[in-house]
Amino acid sequence: MKFSIKKEILLENLNYVSHAVSTKNVIPVLSGIKFDLTNEGLNLIASDNEVDIKVFIEKKYIDKIEKEGSIVIQGKFLLDIVRKLDEGIINIEVIDGLKIMIYNLKSNFNLNGIDPDEFPNLNIEKSNSPIELEKKVLKTMINQTIYATSTQESRPILTGLNFKIDSDKLECIATDSYRLSKKTIKLEKAVDNPINIVIPGKNIGELVKIINDDEEKLNIHIFTNKVLFEFDNILFQSRLLNDVFPNISRLIPDDFKLIIKADLNELFNVVDRASLLTSEKEKNVIKFETNGNILTVTSNTPEIGRVEEKLPIIKDKNEDIKIAFSAKHMMDALRTIDSKDVRILLNTEISPIILNTGDNDDLLQLLMPIKTY
Amino acid sequence: MKFSIKKEILLENLNYVSHAVSTKNVIPVLSGIKFDLTNEGLNLIASDNEVDIKVFIEKKYIDKIEKEGSIVIQGKFLLDIVRKLDEGIINIEVIDGLKIMIYNLKSNFNLNGIDPDEFPNLNIEKSNSPIELEKKVLKTMINQTIYATSTQESRPILTGLNFKIDSDKLECIATDSYRLSKKTIKLEKAVDNPINIVIPGKNIGELVKIINDDEEKLNIHIFTNKVLFEFDNILFQSRLLNDVFPNISRLIPDDFKLIIKADLNELFNVVDRASLLTSEKEKNVIKFETNGNILTVTSNTPEIGRVEEKLPIIKDKNEDIKIAFSAKHMMDALRTIDSKDVRILLNTEISPIILNTGDNDDLLQLLMPIKTY
Repeated sequence: MKFSIKKEILLENLNYVSHAVSTKNVIPVLSGIKFDLTNEGLNLIASDNEVDIKVFIEKKYIDKIEKEGSIVIQGKFLLDIVRKLDEGIINIEVIDGLKIMIYNLKSNFNLNGIDPDEFPNLNIEKSNSPIELEKKVLKTMINQTIYATSTQESRPILTGLNFKIDSDKLECIATDSYRLSKKTIKLEKAVDNPINIVIPGKNIGELVKIINDDEEKLNIHIFTNKVLFEFDNILFQSRLLNDVFPNISRLIPDDFKLIIKADLNELFNVVDRASLLTSEKEKNVIKFETNGNILTVTSNTPEIGRVEEKLPIIKDKNEDIKIAFSAKHMMDALRTIDSKDVRILLNTEISPIILNTGDNDDLLQLLMPIKTY
Repeated sequence: MKFSIKKEILLENLNYVSHAVSTKNVIPVLSGIKFDLTNEGLNLIASDNEVDIKVFIEKKYIDKIEKEGSIVIQGKFLLDIVRKLDEGIINIEVIDGLKIMIYNLKSNFNLNGIDPDEFPNLNIEKSNSPIELEKKVLKTMINQTIYATSTQESRPILTGLNFKIDSDKLECIATDSYRLSKKTIKLEKAVDNPINIVIPGKNIGELVKIINDDEEKLNIHIFTNKVLFEFDNILFQSRLLNDVFPNISRLIPDDFKLIIKADLNELFNVVDRASLLTSEKEKNVIKFETNGNILTVTSNTPEIGRVEEKLPIIKDKNEDIKIAFSAKHMMDALRTIDSKDVRILLNTEISPIILNTGDNDDLLQLLMPIKTY
């Protein structure tokens, strides 16, 4: 293998695949990036058994392809080297079978490579009927929901993000059983058969890091045990979680005793300040209490002190309510909402608290109250 | 105690004293900030037994002083609260002896205070003949030398920064015994008696964080067991280390077998890249080898690989040298030098390596070579 390429092109593409380079040293070859050079271009491939990433650099972006071939190079060193080399052309060459030379006029790195035959076959394949979506729409949807996935392995299925597609409606749902996030979008093309998959949250978190938010389309290829995202020159494949995701529709009431409208930023700041004297050990509990058109937010931790905040609100009915919940969960939910105002939909002090904007109800955030007596 | 003050004024001054708030909970009162309000203004005081900081906010910067008095408030909560309160006036009031109310129109915090009589008397005092220095000069001097202080407690004296004043010459010296940094400056006013003190590096590191680099003067008041820096509205006091700092003058040769001149940035990048395949466990050893007007920089770690870098240099004599040293130490030293070119002054492969700019020799960096055979 021997070729020459501009530093910035190689670095950009190495950065993409680096998100799948294994940092555990269980299977040594997976801590490397596989280079596969043909006269058509260069494939860079990495996998950590959770995520497989393959990028293709077309020959027109490569300055010189002198000799086809394959090699696996340690990801950690490779990224550092390419990042720190001077701008300009970088030459990469395999000598004596498994020795790699990376060089330009000033610098010359000799690295030990790994036999490319040791690299597992990743079976990255496309389906006949992918889902089409704008990259920006997908990225926003993931960013608005992923925070509610569980980080605990006690119920592994809740560490995933649920994609449910029925006809032209795609729902993306996450829940850790204390809170829930749901985003609904309309697909341009309806699917023939309903789809219901759960993608590990950590994996989809890596996808979000390498996907940009322009309005170009991407394709999602769904299989029974894996999903492939195809965009730009990148193929991003993740395994799926096999268990059944809980049906959350019964959790979300249709009627509400009280709907409160408040300024989103002001509400966030009030909750943030009320949380200052709470402790994570005590679930950062704060209390809401409405009184006419004033919302009073309080917290009380005897050894530290007490906070009381006041905020003007608009109510849809002449009802009042007291309810307590985790300030941290409320702030996480408010952060995903991009709007001047937010609506808080309430029933009793033990019913779920729902947040949305009212304008377009495609995003719904839910948190469970906490009993404080 | 009762007063009203603009948020940004209180926050700025709390940020200064926060650098002395104890994070260890050995003496509870030291995790607080002492407020001392008189009709002349507000003193804020904190101490962690290493550093004492006292700032004075004059009455003209306080909107209303309603009642003089003192209280100690938990530093951690106070900073968070003031930071997150809305812009504008903040009211602070002590009620029922030790209860503190911090409030504005929207927010109301009630905190438990600590009895101000429990706060130790810090004995912050000024001398009759302080040393005068521009803030900018002091800050630059510390930043250029402090990196060479030791972080190991095996020889406590080396964790400090040595200030040696003889007549109008101030030398600031740090060494961890593997490398050494020395900056010399000329004082406007000579001192009558020589001064030789060692300030704990960690303490002086906190000073650097709160001192700005304008050209105003500050005063340094030196005592046998403590030093006080007086600037703006801030008094910053540190204890001193009592042991004798090693005399380093014999370490620095007067003559050199070879003086190399190189572009500072290029040299830094070459050393940085050569260090990529080295390991900290092996002291990040790299090798310099001159050959005519080319400097070759190499490193070699059999399990990982080998780097070779080349750099044009100018030599003062037709000598050549091979020498090995820690790339990390070389980079730390090069970072302190602000110049286009740097000079490397060498004798044998086991003599100290000296770095300076040649223009003005007020800054000298020294590192010991490492034997590699």
